[in-house]
Amino acid sequence: MDNTETAEALVRAANQAFYDAHEHRDIDAMAQAWEQSERAVCVHPGWPILRGWAEVERSWRGILSGPGRNQFILTNLDVTVRGDVAWVTVDENLVDGAATGTIAATNVFCRDDHGAWKLTLHHGSPVMG
Amino acid sequence: MDNTETAEALVRAANQAFYDAHEHRDIDAMAQAWEQSERAVCVHPGWPILRGWAEVERSWRGILSGPGRNQFILTNLDVTVRGDVAWVTVDENLVDGAATGTIAATNVFCRDDHGAWKLTLHHGSPVMG
Repeated sequence: MDNTETAEALVRAANQAFYDAHEHRDIDAMAQAWEQSERAVCVHPGWPILRGWAEVERSWRGILSGPGRNQFILTNLDVTVRGDVAWVTVDENLVDGAATGTIAATNVFCRDDHGAWKLTLHHGSPVMG
Repeated sequence: MDNTETAEALVRAANQAFYDAHEHRDIDAMAQAWEQSERAVCVHPGWPILRGWAEVERSWRGILSGPGRNQFILTNLDVTVRGDVAWVTVDENLVDGAATGTIAATNVFCRDDHGAWKLTLHHGSPVMG
């Protein structure tokens, strides 16, 4: 693999870790997946923009302790890497008992000083039938 | 201004050019605002993920020739620059006669070989009251 392929594989793994944390309701793993900085941004489906890790973390604590199984089947995933920034677009297909549906998601990752790719922006929006 | 401040100002201008093109229903200006490549991605509010400039352009031709005044008041705008990539998060407050509402938007820009910042990803989602 050349450097771009390596980076893309690492970004795919970081992206999967984010969804695994969500599915397992693991706030520590969720925190590990994120860049814990002021520039962290999260837009949950239908929510306003949340800025800064403190506010983003608070939202995940609420979501991960709430109802719902938070199980996803990811499809239509694409990765773009440019330098120390990468972005993933993906369909999150929710499987939650009666509640099913597709969320179109954008995930922006930055490579940190240790070479780890951290989620700095997550934006999810419901796809209307 | 240092380089980061200069880049941020250029990204703000590129972001404004995108919204001006939308408001003026100017498909040529819209095309100028975008990176016309295979990696262009657009998620209109409620839409599925559109990939590649051809598909993205087709959607804008439809939207810009459709009904609605497409007038926006932008608020809560934030810019992050990292190398040749930048992202803007912003509230698009629609003013369209009876139809008003807020769209939370993420716009990712890349700096091209000529130093121009081009929109490579737009993701908008309705903020539910």
